[in-house]
Amino acid sequence: MTPQGTYDIGVVGAGAWGTTLAMHLGLTGRKVLLWAFEPDVVSEINSDHTNSTYLKGFKLPEEIFATSDLADIGVAPRLIIVVPSSFYQRTVESLFPHLHNNVSILSATKGFLNPELKRPSELLIEKAPGHPIGVLSGPNLSREIASRLPAISLVASKDENLIREYQTMLSTERFRVYGGSDMTGTELGGALKNIIAIAAGMVDGLHLGENTMAALITRGLTEMIKLGKILGAEERTFYGVSGLGDLICTCQSPLSRNNLVGKRIAEGEKLDHIRASISAIPEGIETSKNVHKYAQAHNLDLPITQAVHRILFESAAPEMALRELMTRTYKME
Amino acid sequence: MTPQGTYDIGVVGAGAWGTTLAMHLGLTGRKVLLWAFEPDVVSEINSDHTNSTYLKGFKLPEEIFATSDLADIGVAPRLIIVVPSSFYQRTVESLFPHLHNNVSILSATKGFLNPELKRPSELLIEKAPGHPIGVLSGPNLSREIASRLPAISLVASKDENLIREYQTMLSTERFRVYGGSDMTGTELGGALKNIIAIAAGMVDGLHLGENTMAALITRGLTEMIKLGKILGAEERTFYGVSGLGDLICTCQSPLSRNNLVGKRIAEGEKLDHIRASISAIPEGIETSKNVHKYAQAHNLDLPITQAVHRILFESAAPEMALRELMTRTYKME
Repeated sequence: MTPQGTYDIGVVGAGAWGTTLAMHLGLTGRKVLLWAFEPDVVSEINSDHTNSTYLKGFKLPEEIFATSDLADIGVAPRLIIVVPSSFYQRTVESLFPHLHNNVSILSATKGFLNPELKRPSELLIEKAPGHPIGVLSGPNLSREIASRLPAISLVASKDENLIREYQTMLSTERFRVYGGSDMTGTELGGALKNIIAIAAGMVDGLHLGENTMAALITRGLTEMIKLGKILGAEERTFYGVSGLGDLICTCQSPLSRNNLVGKRIAEGEKLDHIRASISAIPEGIETSKNVHKYAQAHNLDLPITQAVHRILFESAAPEMALRELMTRTYKME
Repeated sequence: MTPQGTYDIGVVGAGAWGTTLAMHLGLTGRKVLLWAFEPDVVSEINSDHTNSTYLKGFKLPEEIFATSDLADIGVAPRLIIVVPSSFYQRTVESLFPHLHNNVSILSATKGFLNPELKRPSELLIEKAPGHPIGVLSGPNLSREIASRLPAISLVASKDENLIREYQTMLSTERFRVYGGSDMTGTELGGALKNIIAIAAGMVDGLHLGENTMAALITRGLTEMIKLGKILGAEERTFYGVSGLGDLICTCQSPLSRNNLVGKRIAEGEKLDHIRASISAIPEGIETSKNVHKYAQAHNLDLPITQAVHRILFESAAPEMALRELMTRTYKME
């Protein structure tokens, strides 16, 4: 089956967030072309209007047509790319030869492409010169948005037309989209918060309480800003929707897969066992690895990232490593 | 019974937080003189070593001696004042004639003394000139600290000796005390966050989800900073332990009484009914009233405070008022 007629937008990636975005767009009447990697996900979406692998329990609108052929996506006048960071580069490289001129591209993936902390939008700018590029990030738990609960988000771009285009495309009474110009800070917030969320899951799993959770999130934001400024982000972006907002949401909700990984680790499960038990590997695992490598290479002190890395990859006991993290000697704040 | 011997510290106020601080100090071996307003609370503490009115379920250390006579407190070499804001002025005025020279005073009350938003420490500086004055504030849910869960807090003062004195007095392996110099910002964070916490309880009670909660907290911090800067606070203080830290903790925990008020209102209870059912009136109710008056008098736009005030005191329906708050037109962040 090939896609018929015209589409308002292409969504590349049918994980939980990609499927939710397609669903959100479809419910406002947009015609959505949704690319999924797995042929069985494609056929289930087209025949049953469900995606039981990545967004179980929701009926998708009929405005969504799925395909597993990236060449099909070339017909869409605008794109949201939301594949996992580990598939990002190869997906983009297969997709871009099919791209029409002037198609604008919004990246909604929250992770890095390598240990030099290359951001998805950097790759887009490199590979699709001349195309308007932006990023979407915010406190947006997929299942809540799929349940039509209210939320806000942020589109950041150097291109104000792109911001207005996607605000118009995505905004509803329940989903408000802010605009901003700091792509770097917006993308970094979404990626780095996953490391803190894993630590938050551990605090939760160890029953350390809300005082400790609040201390962790506060210190986590400081750690994100420290690295963010080195990478060229604006500090103020981290205090907004895509920084603090996303951080709080991901750290507090059991719907966050990163949070859940931390919780299960704290409860004694092994990382390999957790990985084998879930359909989508949470971005925070790879992000912890990449940021840790970056910190080592550049001699940076990022205590939470280091603690998470020690627990995930160096067999440190969660309780011990977190206690050490939280009881550094007191000093002027 | 009059207090015997010497004391390391006097704690003025035996509500949940005052009793917890006394307990925390007593457990590290400090001799604590604890003033309570109610004679039956005093006698229960001295005879049974419990405070079933304000900190039910905990055994207090024998290092605590309670009194209802403010004149007794004059013998303590340092003081923590932690009475409700509505009793603050009269307590201080009755206490201070008994104060010895050089006694340092730490204020741990989180509220305002009037609609001009006079802070507790401002009154202390006025009424006890020459005494070292500081404030204590942070993400410190009483019951978690009484349960000996880890936490961090902040002592702010212009007097570095006072900071060191109370860091030494209060710090344990599980309770880390930072030092800072912005008394205004520290005190404002602790007071203003209670308004946001009431709104957070409403978000919770209306089941609006973690995305909305994160959006509220993020916008809440912005609102706190807006007012804080007008009142002379440093912006950066709000991003630390006593600002963001306390805000997150209070907004997220059902142990917070302010949060709980919002939740019960959202579930349809009347404010008067809630007030009549609890032993200590949460500070946030009066704080909402004071800040709302201040905003009106100074023509400030504080949307969350206004929404909370409308719901608490102007019979607005929580669902409607919150929806209005959360769906203001989108714009550049």
